[in-house]
Amino acid sequence: MDPKREQMRGNGDNEREFKQGLLYPFDKSKQRKLVAAPLANGDEYSPSRGGIPSGCYSLSFFMNVLVVVFLFSHLCRHDLQTALRLVPETSTPSASCPASKVLEDSSKEHCSGHGAYEVDYETDTGSCRCHTCFTGRDCAIPDSSCVIDLYQGDPTMYENYWRENGDSCTTTILGWQRMSYYANSKKFFFVQTELDQVIRSLHEVIGNAVTKDRHIVIGVGSTQLYQAALYALSPSDRPVPAKVVSATPFYSSYPMITDFLKSSLYRWAGDAAAVMPSGNSDDEFYIELVTSPNNPTGEVRESVLIKGRRGVPTRSGALVHDLAYYWPHHIPITAPADEDLMLFTVSKSTGHAGTRIGWAIVKDLNVAQKMARFIELNTIGVSKDAQIRATQILRAVTKQYRELGGKIPYPLDSAGSPKQLFHFAAAEMSYRWERLRSVLKKGTKFSVSEFDPAWCSFFGESRLPTPAFAWLRCEEVEDCELYMRQNGILTRSGSYFGSQARYVRLSMLDRRATFEVLVDRLEKLQLIDSVS
Amino acid sequence: MDPKREQMRGNGDNEREFKQGLLYPFDKSKQRKLVAAPLANGDEYSPSRGGIPSGCYSLSFFMNVLVVVFLFSHLCRHDLQTALRLVPETSTPSASCPASKVLEDSSKEHCSGHGAYEVDYETDTGSCRCHTCFTGRDCAIPDSSCVIDLYQGDPTMYENYWRENGDSCTTTILGWQRMSYYANSKKFFFVQTELDQVIRSLHEVIGNAVTKDRHIVIGVGSTQLYQAALYALSPSDRPVPAKVVSATPFYSSYPMITDFLKSSLYRWAGDAAAVMPSGNSDDEFYIELVTSPNNPTGEVRESVLIKGRRGVPTRSGALVHDLAYYWPHHIPITAPADEDLMLFTVSKSTGHAGTRIGWAIVKDLNVAQKMARFIELNTIGVSKDAQIRATQILRAVTKQYRELGGKIPYPLDSAGSPKQLFHFAAAEMSYRWERLRSVLKKGTKFSVSEFDPAWCSFFGESRLPTPAFAWLRCEEVEDCELYMRQNGILTRSGSYFGSQARYVRLSMLDRRATFEVLVDRLEKLQLIDSVS
Repeated sequence: MDPKREQMRGNGDNEREFKQGLLYPFDKSKQRKLVAAPLANGDEYSPSRGGIPSGCYSLSFFMNVLVVVFLFSHLCRHDLQTALRLVPETSTPSASCPASKVLEDSSKEHCSGHGAYEVDYETDTGSCRCHTCFTGRDCAIPDSSCVIDLYQGDPTMYENYWRENGDSCTTTILGWQRMSYYANSKKFFFVQTELDQVIRSLHEVIGNAVTKDRHIVIGVGSTQLYQAALYALSPSDRPVPAKVVSATPFYSSYPMITDFLKSSLYRWAGDAAAVMPSGNSDDEFYIELVTSPNNPTGEVRESVLIKGRRGVPTRSGALVHDLAYYWPHHIPITAPADEDLMLFTVSKSTGHAGTRIGWAIVKDLNVAQKMARFIELNTIGVSKDAQIRATQILRAVTKQYRELGGKIPYPLDSAGSPKQLFHFAAAEMSYRWERLRSVLKKGTKFSVSEFDPAWCSFFGESRLPTPAFAWLRCEEVEDCELYMRQNGILTRSGSYFGSQARYVRLSMLDRRATFEVLVDRLEKLQLIDSVS
Repeated sequence: MDPKREQMRGNGDNEREFKQGLLYPFDKSKQRKLVAAPLANGDEYSPSRGGIPSGCYSLSFFMNVLVVVFLFSHLCRHDLQTALRLVPETSTPSASCPASKVLEDSSKEHCSGHGAYEVDYETDTGSCRCHTCFTGRDCAIPDSSCVIDLYQGDPTMYENYWRENGDSCTTTILGWQRMSYYANSKKFFFVQTELDQVIRSLHEVIGNAVTKDRHIVIGVGSTQLYQAALYALSPSDRPVPAKVVSATPFYSSYPMITDFLKSSLYRWAGDAAAVMPSGNSDDEFYIELVTSPNNPTGEVRESVLIKGRRGVPTRSGALVHDLAYYWPHHIPITAPADEDLMLFTVSKSTGHAGTRIGWAIVKDLNVAQKMARFIELNTIGVSKDAQIRATQILRAVTKQYRELGGKIPYPLDSAGSPKQLFHFAAAEMSYRWERLRSVLKKGTKFSVSEFDPAWCSFFGESRLPTPAFAWLRCEEVEDCELYMRQNGILTRSGSYFGSQARYVRLSMLDRRATFEVLVDRLEKLQLIDSVS
């Protein structure tokens, strides 16, 4: 029996269907019929007893009573909380596919706001998986002995923001949609046109990159696009691999990602600033990575090798600009970035790292085509589901700023309620950096760089950088990572970045609760006289 | 003004909201309130005039009239077709995120069933993108001069199946869910436990692979997992790269995928059957790929080199079994596959190639961990959105067969209506192969291999293989691919598979309409005496 038909007949098995989420949503066409049901008496209008026949009244009243009974039977059978739980204000009605129940369950306010509610579908039991530093069945108990992991840059800071804004970004995909290998782009077979379009709109509205007459290649994160760029830019006809360089401190993953397959096309060659100007440059080809703002140090950067200082090229090669953090909540937007090859990622703009979508903005069509070829060979394109989700999210952000006029600047005080994404994120990052600096000033054990302010065209004011990572220097110990680890804070050693072990990189993108534990611990460490 | 509040107030702006799909679906909690609105009179029960007060009747009647007016005003303002179009039977109610409108629109029955309706979100205009061999604004006009592209294996055959079953597999993801780099697996950081679980359930129910005590690694398609396997299995301490081999005809993408980065770890070395038994085997390490059933030829295969004939290993090395097609609609399932490293993909089991999800079933934990390390470095894991979707779909298939008892066999006549996935697909493949063979028998220009039947434990009967590709031999021309191309059929030349140009591989997985054009053309070609 089709459960929808049962529902229409007011079958007594409604409880099971209700629990399975089959009763909601109503199939829309039947929904209209349900509404129409009490209307039958309206059709039977005939002038009597003040214009309305008693038969009509009886039937109308009877239908209304039926609806009351139906409704209250459900409210009683499940406690009200359950009834409300199955109709959360901010979620879309569930699909009838069982896995959606996992998503609905995890959207409930379990776990005291300090954990994720997970349902084991096989056993239909759920439990809280607590966030760092919280414990207990409902994650309500702070755990002061916790180890905080700031080694990665997992952007969990954005989670609560999207929870409040979640209903504007729900993604719904029907079972038969987007099944093909092929998307609808006229240029690269796997790219969805809607995603290309929304990326261009976003950059126009935010003002942080030029996209006109550029090609956009989508990848499984900017990580994959980085490798695609190396493949596309390396000459295939040289006896030695292209040398991949970046000025220290450089992003710690570059060396490993470059070299893990021991490609003959390109090899990691270290510090761009250390490359000798002389030498046989005929066979040597350099690919210089410029990360701006830099990871781990947070400041604006320019090429030191390919374009050289004062614009004089010193070496034959190509440039890759990794602009993952070139967004207004991390660095003043001085001008729309306008480089030959620019990498961006959803992970560091909206926080949706798990979606795995990045994009490259490329001037040269041949380079873009070769990057797309890499993506084809490596993974036969990029998941359509991920592209759909990224489109949703980026479109929501673009819309937020269109509602503020769609053109820079967007002063801080123009933020709505709830705030627009970058207004939220900028305020949060400013809070965190001010808090961190104020704590570090209280002692001499730790230091972070000072930054110069710059004019930010996005906010229309002079601002300080508020990077995604803190590049912390231990003034009193040589192995900062070890010291921090001994004190329950996991960081990444400066030695991974081509720098000294006296430095560590720690994430400023974790949840607020974790950040507060961090500054609290740093503050306490400042008070300890000797190094433990 | 929150559009939902406007709706509740019965604001006259309903038309705009209705068009935007905001009126449907009703927010569930408000939906209950809307239903409750006419109930107020039911609460005011008091015994008079035969038990029901006239005031109640009047109010009740008034409410019903209101609803009638509301409804008919919409039916009149939009033609009925539009009203129905906005409430398609099989779609879920729209999310309020604008991009979902694209999905709803494309789910309408436009384009005569021979195209996809695409909406340009920026301009809000839609048009049909017609399938091969159809044209016209509504894709209703057959285009007999069309070129049919059977070069790839894009599994569009499954699209109509999932369209009919789509409501059971809708995926809904809220804006704040699954944002992190980290999934919830205890083993591999990027793997979602639900997907691991459903894969094991599926294999248990279908009976085509052993998963007990095995590790499951997820990848962006089995293509990425193939590269992960090469990385994991290649020794890192040998002076020469591992030699990657496969018996001809082998899958045409293997050589390019193996060699495009010119890795020092592994290199393509051609035909596994051509490897000499003698030679210095200390430094040589072989990785043999066994594709079974084979792509392009469709028959069952075993190792010829590593395990050798009669199980005697001839070379030091490792095995990778690509079992993408080891499903009951392509080959009799003789036993659950039980190899050291087995690759599967959603693309060839359910047809959701665009989702980009594959999985590896791995015996050795070290190998699995190294494969996961590859996925980490290559793409920092796999999109959570893609994993959620794959979970939905595989769970639906598992559920279909659990409803038939959950244990093999599932005789063909036990299929429900609609049919279970593999029952549908097996019937479709059988139809296509019988049709193809009957056409080819009418002449001597083309031939395909004959297969031997085997006992299929899944269907509980003796069956013939019905592969995803036809390995067609041109009996009268040497360059079969050229001949076919001249006659409007794009295929892949046998030379790409390490075989002869007299062979071509053509996809049997395209839409039914395209398949009919194929056999029609082959039939006509048989009638032509001379080669044109």
